[in-house]
Amino acid sequence: MTFEHEIMVGWGDCDPAKIAYTGRIPNWCLDSINAFLHAHLGGGWFVQELDNDMGMPFVHMSIDFRAPVTPRHPLICRVFPTKLGTASVTFQVEGFQNGTLCFQGTFVEVVTVASTFEKQTIPAHLRRALEAHLPS
Amino acid sequence: MTFEHEIMVGWGDCDPAKIAYTGRIPNWCLDSINAFLHAHLGGGWFVQELDNDMGMPFVHMSIDFRAPVTPRHPLICRVFPTKLGTASVTFQVEGFQNGTLCFQGTFVEVVTVASTFEKQTIPAHLRRALEAHLPS
Amino acid sequence: MTFEHEIMVGWGDCDPAKIAYTGRIPNWCLDSINAFLHAHLGGGWFVQELDNDMGMPFVHMSIDFRAPVTPRHPLICRVFPTKLGTASVTFQVEGFQNGTLCFQGTFVEVVTVASTFEKQTIPAHLRRALEAHLPS
Amino acid sequence: MTFEHEIMVGWGDCDPAKIAYTGRIPNWCLDSINAFLHAHLGGGWFVQELDNDMGMPFVHMSIDFRAPVTPRHPLICRVFPTKLGTASVTFQVEGFQNGTLCFQGTFVEVVTVASTFEKQTIPAHLRRALEAHLPS
Repeated sequence: MTFEHEIMVGWGDCDPAKIAYTGRIPNWCLDSINAFLHAHLGGGWFVQELDNDMGMPFVHMSIDFRAPVTPRHPLICRVFPTKLGTASVTFQVEGFQNGTLCFQGTFVEVVTVASTFEKQTIPAHLRRALEAHLPS
Repeated sequence: MTFEHEIMVGWGDCDPAKIAYTGRIPNWCLDSINAFLHAHLGGGWFVQELDNDMGMPFVHMSIDFRAPVTPRHPLICRVFPTKLGTASVTFQVEGFQNGTLCFQGTFVEVVTVASTFEKQTIPAHLRRALEAHLPS
Repeated sequence: MTFEHEIMVGWGDCDPAKIAYTGRIPNWCLDSINAFLHAHLGGGWFVQELDNDMGMPFVHMSIDFRAPVTPRHPLICRVFPTKLGTASVTFQVEGFQNGTLCFQGTFVEVVTVASTFEKQTIPAHLRRALEAHLPS
Repeated sequence: MTFEHEIMVGWGDCDPAKIAYTGRIPNWCLDSINAFLHAHLGGGWFVQELDNDMGMPFVHMSIDFRAPVTPRHPLICRVFPTKLGTASVTFQVEGFQNGTLCFQGTFVEVVTVASTFEKQTIPAHLRRALEAHLPS
């Protein structure tokens, strides 16, 4: 079961071309990754940073925009990890409206000790959650 | 029954003081009013503007910030109209986390013909929805 | 001399009504207050929080929207303090485009010890800067 | 001379890790491309869409994050086109603070007739401006 995060696209997300502004889309992808972590770890980046001293800064994002996003339909963002390194994780995010793929992106985070900004090996609680959702 | 709109507060909504940045809160209030309209009219500002040629520009907002907002709990925004004029509507928005009132605000919109930007008497479909939710 | 902060309004700031989205305006007001502090204290909220252990959370904002904001002209935000309390400051922000007043707002911050979230008497370096810009 | 757009990074752009939130960076890149067009065409996306019936939707973005962005220094975004197709243009955006490369990204826009959403050959006024800034 792929994790899905639903977003309500609003008036303020749209530009004068009457579609969601490009700059909103990376933010929705990030919100969806955060929601994935919240659902599977019991807390997103905020909780991981403050309670577990674990940071997850991004080193890369890449997005292809396939079709316009509008407020006409809910935006369903599917999120899953595609690759686990020693200290990094790659997520795929795919945004759908009414069955149409609107965008898809690749996002790479490194895992750090939040208090020192140094890389760390992915801790067990995160690795377990990610491995359970790698595509088979 | 007061309409409630739930918001998932994220890492990116917070500032270095580890609470939601002030500038996010008026946006959440607006999103909640849009969600109220969506729920009760079958479409928010986007649909009203494009399909019904009805605009709803804001002429005033006022917000009191009572307690910090964090990602620790869902943010529940209660929305209801408090006053109907001939061509204007006042909404109250109250944001709660874990039972605590975090902020409350007053928002005034005028109703326009979208294509001409001119004020119009509140159309029947909107007036009906608003009157049904005025506090008794 | 009233402090002025110039903002370049962009495509992504506008909604399908072809004017700046309401939710952008409080953010520009906040940015302008931050710019005022940066100009007069040698550092905005970030520097005050991290280097001077001084927080400045908002307890109130109120904005009247007078005329639409568009990307056609630079947005000039005039910022000045209007009232100093023992531990609070009120700012007025006025946004102009091409000589027209587009919005004006009132913003109240309390001054805290950042590390404890407790109110503090406005420190000398801030009080000096604010007093110098109170309207006579 | 490479075009440069300066951004003042603020408190509200930063997350609890005390650095600019990842989601702000693609927006700054877009703002910088818009500023490039404004400077070289006499108007950014808003003016091109409304006055010249020319749209420029994005089909791709890719960003590498090299170093944290903070409010300690101005953020200088260098923008230049790297490739011109018949109906598309690729921009490179590089963000620097205090001489350090913080991020670099690639952004691809297609050029459309705004009123029909159909691709068009890049009009002369845009092609001229872009060709003048291609790296030699």
